[in-house]
Amino acid sequence: MADLKNKILELVQDDLEAIEEALIENLKPYLELVSEVAGHILFSGGKRLRPLLMVLAARLCGYKGGYDKTFSTAFEYLHAATLLHDDLVDEAHLRRGKPVAHSIWGNSTAVLVGDFLLARGLSIAAAAGNPIIIQVIADITENMSQGELHQLNRKGSLDLTEAEYMDIIRRKTAVLFQGACRISAILADADKEKESALSDFGFHIGMAFQMADDLLDYTFDTRALGKAVGADLREGKLTLPVIYSLKHARPADRKKMEALIQNGDFSVENFRWLVEILKNSGGIDYTKMLAGDHVEKARQSLSIFNDSKTKNILLGIADYAIVRNY
Amino acid sequence: MADLKNKILELVQDDLEAIEEALIENLKPYLELVSEVAGHILFSGGKRLRPLLMVLAARLCGYKGGYDKTFSTAFEYLHAATLLHDDLVDEAHLRRGKPVAHSIWGNSTAVLVGDFLLARGLSIAAAAGNPIIIQVIADITENMSQGELHQLNRKGSLDLTEAEYMDIIRRKTAVLFQGACRISAILADADKEKESALSDFGFHIGMAFQMADDLLDYTFDTRALGKAVGADLREGKLTLPVIYSLKHARPADRKKMEALIQNGDFSVENFRWLVEILKNSGGIDYTKMLAGDHVEKARQSLSIFNDSKTKNILLGIADYAIVRNY
Repeated sequence: MADLKNKILELVQDDLEAIEEALIENLKPYLELVSEVAGHILFSGGKRLRPLLMVLAARLCGYKGGYDKTFSTAFEYLHAATLLHDDLVDEAHLRRGKPVAHSIWGNSTAVLVGDFLLARGLSIAAAAGNPIIIQVIADITENMSQGELHQLNRKGSLDLTEAEYMDIIRRKTAVLFQGACRISAILADADKEKESALSDFGFHIGMAFQMADDLLDYTFDTRALGKAVGADLREGKLTLPVIYSLKHARPADRKKMEALIQNGDFSVENFRWLVEILKNSGGIDYTKMLAGDHVEKARQSLSIFNDSKTKNILLGIADYAIVRNY
Repeated sequence: MADLKNKILELVQDDLEAIEEALIENLKPYLELVSEVAGHILFSGGKRLRPLLMVLAARLCGYKGGYDKTFSTAFEYLHAATLLHDDLVDEAHLRRGKPVAHSIWGNSTAVLVGDFLLARGLSIAAAAGNPIIIQVIADITENMSQGELHQLNRKGSLDLTEAEYMDIIRRKTAVLFQGACRISAILADADKEKESALSDFGFHIGMAFQMADDLLDYTFDTRALGKAVGADLREGKLTLPVIYSLKHARPADRKKMEALIQNGDFSVENFRWLVEILKNSGGIDYTKMLAGDHVEKARQSLSIFNDSKTKNILLGIADYAIVRNY
């Protein structure tokens, strides 16, 4: 697992450095506090997965223009903006092991810097001067806020369905990955077939990525993730492993699960019991299986492209989306 | 004053009804809660000044397309989005005499519905398919969040300068009015001279409007405004009447003013004293004078257009921007 990650990182090192430079460059001219708060969320160990996918997808389509690195920052800014607002919505305390922005600078600053980063992302996207691209970006932002609202509305609801979960993660996560890959194709003037293939690739990676992320809450030593044990469930956020297990656990176990979820404030011992149930009733495996399906579909989407170093990196990232264990 | 308002309202009644319909229509297909929360802020007695200016400016440029009413809602959605976030930033309790959204639905919902309305506004703007228009909209959103952040950073600062105040109100208010008027000209394919004239018109109306709004905190029975007496100052928001008076009041009065501002929690009696000082040291008159200058400049901007019913209404709105007393 660590090998795959290191191998990918080595292959994209130059791209990541260029993206990092662009991220700094595009924030420089702004108010000191904006840079400080934005920097806190932007330069604290993010993976730059979204901009990286954009840059690689553009290369796969033979893009020769000079705007891909700059444009790719729009996706990181949009992502950072939603993190700032979501941490506030979730009343989170830690992200990547560091105190969240709103606990340092206050809610007001977190809201407004989030707004600023969103606006900055839009400006960068608008500068490409392509109406279709802008429509894609506008759709992304609309979907993301709707996904978050849907999730918020249904917090703590034991009857959240798998279909609702899929719709939520599609909107809040997959559309951004999808947009990053699709816009690359548009930027590179690729034909519709390639645009559609890359759109699918991004969508499936995004779905797999979010499922894997949701799994981490139950399969990994979450302290290393820099957030509290069972954070999702404490916030009343039901994700696929839980949704599946609520349906398939034995009645007595289900009752105890429901009580735990409604209570919200569970002990480490209770949490361990819950993780056992998620394993035994198939919630973990089912989620892994669906995430694996999405990775497979992501890989298949690229079949129309000739083999190349860039294609191989993209395939590696697809695999990595579900094996990451940082 | 009331006459001017009624006369304008009569002349634009059809436009306002069409805007109202479009505002509802463009929110319909969305999640129930979004419509409810968004409706709370959108349908609670707003003046629709921004969409109205857009529709009238488009007509002045001979626009014959069918997208102006729909597009105009983007400006009301952007405005409503900032109100939702600003009320949270300001920890306000009332707006237009009603409890603010975050006190009913919570901070999280207010943040996310604000994000949604911003995204909705962008989608509507993007649908016009014009890259220049999109760039203007992106600039507006970037300026607005920077203006709000600047204001937030300097809350309670007694050394806020007039130049900073002007920059803050330009960004947080005037650019949206300016954009609404300028985009009309672009939408109508008007020449650069008309585009520039309408841009100036919107800018000056926006500046005058915000100064008049800031004056209302000190010149009017603020209970009728639906917010607490001296709300701006309680939040540490120094506006032009105060900035000017701090500079021109007698040293003893200035000291007392500074103490009041830093304390923040003043009695009605103290507030009355403050209003007297603002009057006597020229802060009120100076603000009125500058607001009046902007109205005059707004009127002059329209001089390149032939006389027409539409031009007269726009001139009336310019006058109204500083005499409104609701």
